[in-house]
Amino acid sequence: MAPNGSVGFRDSPVEPGIFLDEDLGSDWYIYESTESAPHDDLFPDAVMECHPTISPQMYHTVMAPISLALILALSFLVKRRRLHLSCWNGVPGLLSPGNLLEQDGHRAVAAAVLALLCSELCRLLLDPHPLPLLPPTGTTTASPAAREFWKVLALLYFPALYSPLLACPGPRHRLGYAAGTLLAWGHCAAQAWHRAQCPLAPKMHRLYSLLSHVPALLSLSLLSLWYPVQLLRSLRSGDSPEPRISGKSYYRKYLKALLSKRDRKGSSLKMDESLSSRIRSYLLSYIYIPEEGFRIPLKLVASVTVAVVAVYQVAVLLLVAVVPPLRIMRAGMSKDVVVLLVQFGLVPSRGAAAPGDLEQELRTAQHFLWALEVCYICSLVLCCLLTYAMLLRSLAMHRSNLRALYQGAVLDVFSKAHILRPSRESLVCWMAFSSFQAAFACLGLLIQQVIFFLCFVAFTFLVVIPLQLGTSSPLFGIIRNMWPFWLTLVVAVLLQHLLAHSQFLEQHSLQKEITNRRALYIVTFLLFPTNVLVGAMAAVWRVVISGLYNAVHLCRLDISLLHRGVETFDPGYRTYCHYLRVEVSQCHPLLKAFCFLLLQPGRPEPPAPPCDTQLEEGLQLMHPKPPAPGRARSRRIRARWWVAYTLLHNPSLTASRKTALADPAANGAQLGVPRP
Amino acid sequence: MAPNGSVGFRDSPVEPGIFLDEDLGSDWYIYESTESAPHDDLFPDAVMECHPTISPQMYHTVMAPISLALILALSFLVKRRRLHLSCWNGVPGLLSPGNLLEQDGHRAVAAAVLALLCSELCRLLLDPHPLPLLPPTGTTTASPAAREFWKVLALLYFPALYSPLLACPGPRHRLGYAAGTLLAWGHCAAQAWHRAQCPLAPKMHRLYSLLSHVPALLSLSLLSLWYPVQLLRSLRSGDSPEPRISGKSYYRKYLKALLSKRDRKGSSLKMDESLSSRIRSYLLSYIYIPEEGFRIPLKLVASVTVAVVAVYQVAVLLLVAVVPPLRIMRAGMSKDVVVLLVQFGLVPSRGAAAPGDLEQELRTAQHFLWALEVCYICSLVLCCLLTYAMLLRSLAMHRSNLRALYQGAVLDVFSKAHILRPSRESLVCWMAFSSFQAAFACLGLLIQQVIFFLCFVAFTFLVVIPLQLGTSSPLFGIIRNMWPFWLTLVVAVLLQHLLAHSQFLEQHSLQKEITNRRALYIVTFLLFPTNVLVGAMAAVWRVVISGLYNAVHLCRLDISLLHRGVETFDPGYRTYCHYLRVEVSQCHPLLKAFCFLLLQPGRPEPPAPPCDTQLEEGLQLMHPKPPAPGRARSRRIRARWWVAYTLLHNPSLTASRKTALADPAANGAQLGVPRP
Repeated sequence: MAPNGSVGFRDSPVEPGIFLDEDLGSDWYIYESTESAPHDDLFPDAVMECHPTISPQMYHTVMAPISLALILALSFLVKRRRLHLSCWNGVPGLLSPGNLLEQDGHRAVAAAVLALLCSELCRLLLDPHPLPLLPPTGTTTASPAAREFWKVLALLYFPALYSPLLACPGPRHRLGYAAGTLLAWGHCAAQAWHRAQCPLAPKMHRLYSLLSHVPALLSLSLLSLWYPVQLLRSLRSGDSPEPRISGKSYYRKYLKALLSKRDRKGSSLKMDESLSSRIRSYLLSYIYIPEEGFRIPLKLVASVTVAVVAVYQVAVLLLVAVVPPLRIMRAGMSKDVVVLLVQFGLVPSRGAAAPGDLEQELRTAQHFLWALEVCYICSLVLCCLLTYAMLLRSLAMHRSNLRALYQGAVLDVFSKAHILRPSRESLVCWMAFSSFQAAFACLGLLIQQVIFFLCFVAFTFLVVIPLQLGTSSPLFGIIRNMWPFWLTLVVAVLLQHLLAHSQFLEQHSLQKEITNRRALYIVTFLLFPTNVLVGAMAAVWRVVISGLYNAVHLCRLDISLLHRGVETFDPGYRTYCHYLRVEVSQCHPLLKAFCFLLLQPGRPEPPAPPCDTQLEEGLQLMHPKPPAPGRARSRRIRARWWVAYTLLHNPSLTASRKTALADPAANGAQLGVPRP
Repeated sequence: MAPNGSVGFRDSPVEPGIFLDEDLGSDWYIYESTESAPHDDLFPDAVMECHPTISPQMYHTVMAPISLALILALSFLVKRRRLHLSCWNGVPGLLSPGNLLEQDGHRAVAAAVLALLCSELCRLLLDPHPLPLLPPTGTTTASPAAREFWKVLALLYFPALYSPLLACPGPRHRLGYAAGTLLAWGHCAAQAWHRAQCPLAPKMHRLYSLLSHVPALLSLSLLSLWYPVQLLRSLRSGDSPEPRISGKSYYRKYLKALLSKRDRKGSSLKMDESLSSRIRSYLLSYIYIPEEGFRIPLKLVASVTVAVVAVYQVAVLLLVAVVPPLRIMRAGMSKDVVVLLVQFGLVPSRGAAAPGDLEQELRTAQHFLWALEVCYICSLVLCCLLTYAMLLRSLAMHRSNLRALYQGAVLDVFSKAHILRPSRESLVCWMAFSSFQAAFACLGLLIQQVIFFLCFVAFTFLVVIPLQLGTSSPLFGIIRNMWPFWLTLVVAVLLQHLLAHSQFLEQHSLQKEITNRRALYIVTFLLFPTNVLVGAMAAVWRVVISGLYNAVHLCRLDISLLHRGVETFDPGYRTYCHYLRVEVSQCHPLLKAFCFLLLQPGRPEPPAPPCDTQLEEGLQLMHPKPPAPGRARSRRIRARWWVAYTLLHNPSLTASRKTALADPAANGAQLGVPRP
């Protein structure tokens, strides 16, 4: 605690009353001890540097090897279980962290782990000790370039640390769930203990550390509840056999919903809706309501979760970086500063020149600062709400786009025809999609905050405060001096509308025709200069509305901010289009349901998978071995399906299609496995 | 001339050396007499207030009544000629200033008069005496609101003053041309005399008045050449009879071009063009090359002319408002100012503390100001070129849009179906279109200038000047300190592309398929935080490119700056769409050619027009009286045309179509005149 009650916002010892020395930036947040703070709950009492029992370094030194050991053990186990006989044949592959292209059931886990990772990312970008494996002194004394280097290492370290949390449920085995439980409890306990021991931190604002850890703690709590539940379920019912098609129940549901909901379309084609119902449906379009039989892909769920967490982190940062300093400035506002402000004309003076009579100016200055604070908080709340609304709306748009693409309506989604096949670029865009969504949401929030804060401040200081204080404002002056001008513009526009309605248009049966052409030309020519001024207003409006629209929609990847013809130059929209190509080509639910049907009937038990480690589950689905001889009819049906599927995906085979169709039962199986 | 050679940029007497008094803004542009200006050609030598022989007040007092008298006389004359017998029957209508919806031959006149008007508008907005009919003292001593009122009156006065110039060629009579010659010569002589007597003006910059009058003088010269030529031609060949369809030669040409150019389309469908030819065709698309058989409508020609003049005026204003003051500041830079600048850190110091050793700092400061000036001029030139390129490009777009709409391809132009009929709103938009184009081009130029100037300044002061002086810049510092970060981003992106190309994609016959899915998921998860940072860069790029795109394309009304779904909220694009509706519905060349054919064959001489003054030329074309009985075949053909036309434009009649088709020759004439 600093002596004589004066409290420094930063750690360095401060000398109260010095405002004009060189270190102005850091010593600005001082308030004199004689002034009592009106709301001291948000003021930073001197927070001691807190050293928890389990230091971050120790926590990471313990958890990192444990995670590594567990994931390696689990990988070996899976290898052993899958390959039964030739256990050590081939390099054992690591477990994948979440099957991001599959519809299996671990959506909550994937979202929680990515949210955790995103939360850590925000922390490490601000932290002077980004890599907690090293002692703190090693990173703070290094050169800036070396510190950047540690940050880069931390960027790779954290996903590696948390990937076991996501990989453990992969094998669907009780040992996997047990390992997950262990890891989740370890992480959760360590972090919760750290927060419980040191709830306040001296850095930034004393509450910032706690607030910024909320998403991480929530994610870890979710994980440490989910894993034990899964473990218990698997212990009670025995391990479920690893399904050949993950999420097959969803595909069956999708198929059912598609086949049953024939009558849904008729009701949505009402053209003559009233205005209120149209407004209601417009507002409802911003709320994502899950529909039966359709599930948003895992990657999109993860993207939106990550974006929400990122926006929360940025909003908290924006809040604690500005509001407490503003409050400290307000409380510490002394009469010397007010004299300066009055001299600069920032605070209106009532003519009291003596320093003793500055009471009212001091109150005005404090009122102005309070108004600034209110503007800032209001605009921040508005921005967060807008961003979340946009994210929800983009979920609904994703669904309708995916639906359209599943039905083959490519031109409804893209402005020109696309081939929905993965390419190098689209794969890279697919990989980066979630990250881009988070980054775009953050930048969008920042830009919105700047714009809306300026708007709120302008409105407050040009309209509200002058009305309150009874003083004049530049805006009122402009309106007062230029009223003939504004009146002329309004009258000119009204006059043109009236004339067009009553004089220049003639009703012919059902349509209107232009009449009185000579008068029309005369009015057009006479009003040309006035219309230029109207056009200037329209141009300003165009700038304002396009700027606002782009700022608000910056976080949405599903719409392009550029014009139709050049929309591929918009990096966000380009990423989204490529993402859709991969998603639709790889996860078409009907295709998957069909594959599932193909694999289902002839095989009561799944055959032993081939030992080729290159062959992944997806490819196995695509190239099933010809079934054992069974009933002739089902075989023929299946063979025809294969022919159709093969031809669909191998257009080069259409040349040999006639012979294939001539004897589908015999050639189908051969065509079904088109190895290049 | 101010005493002892010190020259004030403004009229007020100035005291050199005083920089910190209250009137800082106006006294800033002082340079001391001891410094010799390096380029004194642009410096304002004290320009005396110049009083020409014909004062503006006298010029307007003479020309306004003459214009009014001439146009009234001409109107009576036309009335008398048209109505022959019942001369004074009905109120004589004023001549219309240019048939803006027709394709008659006075395009150059219309463009010149509108350019003249636009030039006057720019002048009157800046002038303290906007209404030259009043004595100057009457307007300067008035209150601001009264001055605004005079400006509003001036907005209506100038089009009224110049409208006779546009209306004179309307009757196509030698008297009209003579009146036009008289007026054009009068205006041109008065203005040229004024400029010759007072080439320099004390206001703004001494050359500003001259530069800003160039478009007006050019327009007036064009008019005062065009009218005598037309007068001579009409005297030599006799007055041409007023044609029933104006511009009929154009419609015939259009029809011929349409019917002959069948083979043009085949050559434009080359898909496998080389890159260089594609770039060439892209660049060529920015140049409007007139095509045979198609003429841009008069309104569009006028809009682009007006926009070009407006952009010129704004550019001249921007140039003289900034560059001469910058030069004066540079020449008048004293050592006291340099000391201040060095103290603020704006000019780097070599450690010389004594005021006598500031030579080098003074040179550096002057160099900085020179760099600012260069940046400003470069960005202004760039902005003007970009705006002109955009205007040319929009001309080409107008042509392709009109072509598409003439062919009925509404969905190629608008994103949803429109009914191409005039409505109240579309008529208002049609009236305001040219003015909007001019206003949007001006605001676009202003915004571009701000953006490009800041970009040029940032580039100069962060890159060029530090490289020149060998000092460090914040940009270099950021790059030096953060190179591991930038390197990581580049490596991460490259790595993903490489992996996607070599590991995650497998070539199957003609298409690619995803393989190694587990590794793909692992890489995706591990690179998630890095990709967030890549995404942040992409988001910044998205902001930059959408901002630049919108700023550059602000002047183009033919594209929307908003997303497809909400493009009607863009005032510019909305105006354009409505304009197109009116233009296409009223000026379809095929329709006009058809009407022309209808009127042509059966009538060697045009019948006397009806005395109904409400019935305009266009309506006469639409409802021709049934022809006198002639040859049966041509009558039947014409009747069928009428049926087709009537049904096309009266969908409500389709119910009775079968009976109409059963006996078209009998019912055609009756259906052809569908009076409500």
